Amino acid sequence: MQKKKIVFFGDSITEAGVNPTGYITQIGTIASKENVSAKYEFVGAGIGGNKVYDLFLRLENDVLNRNPDVVIIFIGVNDVWHKRTYGTGTDADKFEKFYTAIIKKLQEKNIKVVLCTPAAIGEKTDYSNELDGDLNKYSGIIRNLAKANNVPIVDLRNTFLEYNKKYNTENKQAGILTSDGVHLNDKGNQVVAEEMWKIIKAL
Amino acid sequence: MQKKKIVFFGDSITEAGVNPTGYITQIGTIASKENVSAKYEFVGAGIGGNKVYDLFLRLENDVLNRNPDVVIIFIGVNDVWHKRTYGTGTDADKFEKFYTAIIKKLQEKNIKVVLCTPAAIGEKTDYSNELDGDLNKYSGIIRNLAKANNVPIVDLRNTFLEYNKKYNTENKQAGILTSDGVHLNDKGNQVVAEEMWKIIKAL
Amino acid sequence: MQKKKIVFFGDSITEAGVNPTGYITQIGTIASKENVSAKYEFVGAGIGGNKVYDLFLRLENDVLNRNPDVVIIFIGVNDVWHKRTYGTGTDADKFEKFYTAIIKKLQEKNIKVVLCTPAAIGEKTDYSNELDGDLNKYSGIIRNLAKANNVPIVDLRNTFLEYNKKYNTENKQAGILTSDGVHLNDKGNQVVAEEMWKIIKAL
Amino acid sequence: MQKKKIVFFGDSITEAGVNPTGYITQIGTIASKENVSAKYEFVGAGIGGNKVYDLFLRLENDVLNRNPDVVIIFIGVNDVWHKRTYGTGTDADKFEKFYTAIIKKLQEKNIKVVLCTPAAIGEKTDYSNELDGDLNKYSGIIRNLAKANNVPIVDLRNTFLEYNKKYNTENKQAGILTSDGVHLNDKGNQVVAEEMWKIIKAL
Repeated sequence: MQKKKIVFFGDSITEAGVNPTGYITQIGTIASKENVSAKYEFVGAGIGGNKVYDLFLRLENDVLNRNPDVVIIFIGVNDVWHKRTYGTGTDADKFEKFYTAIIKKLQEKNIKVVLCTPAAIGEKTDYSNELDGDLNKYSGIIRNLAKANNVPIVDLRNTFLEYNKKYNTENKQAGILTSDGVHLNDKGNQVVAEEMWKIIKAL
Repeated sequence: MQKKKIVFFGDSITEAGVNPTGYITQIGTIASKENVSAKYEFVGAGIGGNKVYDLFLRLENDVLNRNPDVVIIFIGVNDVWHKRTYGTGTDADKFEKFYTAIIKKLQEKNIKVVLCTPAAIGEKTDYSNELDGDLNKYSGIIRNLAKANNVPIVDLRNTFLEYNKKYNTENKQAGILTSDGVHLNDKGNQVVAEEMWKIIKAL
Repeated sequence: MQKKKIVFFGDSITEAGVNPTGYITQIGTIASKENVSAKYEFVGAGIGGNKVYDLFLRLENDVLNRNPDVVIIFIGVNDVWHKRTYGTGTDADKFEKFYTAIIKKLQEKNIKVVLCTPAAIGEKTDYSNELDGDLNKYSGIIRNLAKANNVPIVDLRNTFLEYNKKYNTENKQAGILTSDGVHLNDKGNQVVAEEMWKIIKAL
Repeated sequence: MQKKKIVFFGDSITEAGVNPTGYITQIGTIASKENVSAKYEFVGAGIGGNKVYDLFLRLENDVLNRNPDVVIIFIGVNDVWHKRTYGTGTDADKFEKFYTAIIKKLQEKNIKVVLCTPAAIGEKTDYSNELDGDLNKYSGIIRNLAKANNVPIVDLRNTFLEYNKKYNTENKQAGILTSDGVHLNDKGNQVVAEEMWKIIKAL
């Protein structure tokens, strides 16, 4: 039987996903527990600081050249965040254009595509994280792209908010699913792994 | 009987408040209808583009020199907005420091102070207006200042969100209480006038 | 004899280049005066607000589909400017990557390429225009790209600075070659037309 | 004989000025060598991240309460830099207003004031450091304030540029007078100490 090759394509969160407690590693562990690890090959393709057009620029080298069966796109935090920190975030309409171009190029090669919304820049639950508004806007764009292209979505933005509403009762900025508001702690990696696994095993 | 002099101290929203349909004019109309207009003098002191430290810098000239009984401070939109448009928004901790300094200087002169939260930068109700997170954060600072200084607050941020949740069913960016997401249309001026009036007549 | 088709590929400055006094129109006039207008077809392909990756995204539709012989790329102002105004400028390294990708795609089709440096954001000559430093940096990237790809360059950044050093003796922000520091007035369009013509007729 | 108390009022550069090789320490060493250390008391009052309005807000506590004879104001880097990194730089006109307010408050107490221009954000000599334009603009404001208020100025912006033109022949971003383009290395502290000393001993 041929293994299904799944590439995780993203930023620093995905770059850390292959660490011992990273979400990609944890997906491997789940697959083992369910005795299906022989069916999958999980490949991390995350680079810190990446925005949607970085994924576009390295799609050929880092993804297509690996002949994946499935690509899970997990991007968006830096497209919003870099507006504040470097003045080089991504315009909403260009975000959609480059994201669409990536989906099209993958689908042309008959590669299955899974989208993810960006989880968090700050874990406060009262909508007072500085960039909440913009991150919600870009998450909305991704949700629309999933619908328009008829592909599955892992709505991590929603998952993280619901989780925090339940467990982050002190309205903390970080420390529940992330170490710093953005990067996943072990629990965050676990939650992402579980959410992604639901989609992966149903593909 | 001596009139109670009330100065409205703010930005472009307050500068437009003295227009024929502006919120300060409408407060005057309400006072007339309730036959108490003889008891009040309403003075607009709004200047477009102002941030909290602009109010601080012109406090002496534009407010203290007028010997008001009450000052209604309505500021905050530009402190957040100018981060995006000019790179010159106000740090959250400095916002609090200058705001506190204004309150102290007014209270030292036995002037009553009323605070307002900034109403909106975008009227969408699903928390996806780009600057919602930061505007909520600064509104939280103002709410805490009202409590800490034991002064009344007109929570326009909350009023506008509740109004839009009811009437902005299409999740529009503008056109319900504002013309452009920030500046008040006639209805917006009316809502602000009514909310402020509740506090003013109870002073 | 077949006409040489020259496409001007850029932003609002190029969009306005086809106006009656625009630089593309003036190049046509120069060609007529020199009795060589039959040899050229000049095509404007400028869209306001464009950055380098906008050119990349519309290269196929707006340039390649027209089968040009020469493409004059005139971009960069918004890549720097939008850092300040929208937080969505272009990272220097991505600017180079997308610019290089455009050059490669044109050269693969045997289309001649001419580069231009961005002329100005502010005409002051004492290096105190707010974005001078960054605009110089991006101009340097373009100069290096011209060398690395062995293609001609119209160094408008340099031309404008030298012109202003001579004629802008009052160190004005605008009004010499531009109307607002960025967009060309008639004289500015003339200077650009003359500089570009030197390169065009030598191709 | 009473010592002349000199307070250095600034940001992280001044905060580091009291370190063993810091510029304030080196001024002390120079004074010793010239056998006049008994005439002076040097006091550092720098706090990292400070902008002009931070100095304004802590003027009473950190400067006036110490009854200085001379205050050397060395501020401006963060007023420009924070536009890029946090969106909370200082508007040019407010920079001038707060700076003027500080000068006035000091002069009212008969304290002598010395101004400094901000030295550098990047040491490149071809005007291609990203923020060169804006830093030159704010340096110009400080030069005008020195003239308008008839007070001495230590024009470090100019000193650093001239020094780099001579010694930074490779057009490096940092490493000549700074460690990172902004914060002074030992040589940078020495140059600042020598320039300030010229003014101090002439007071």
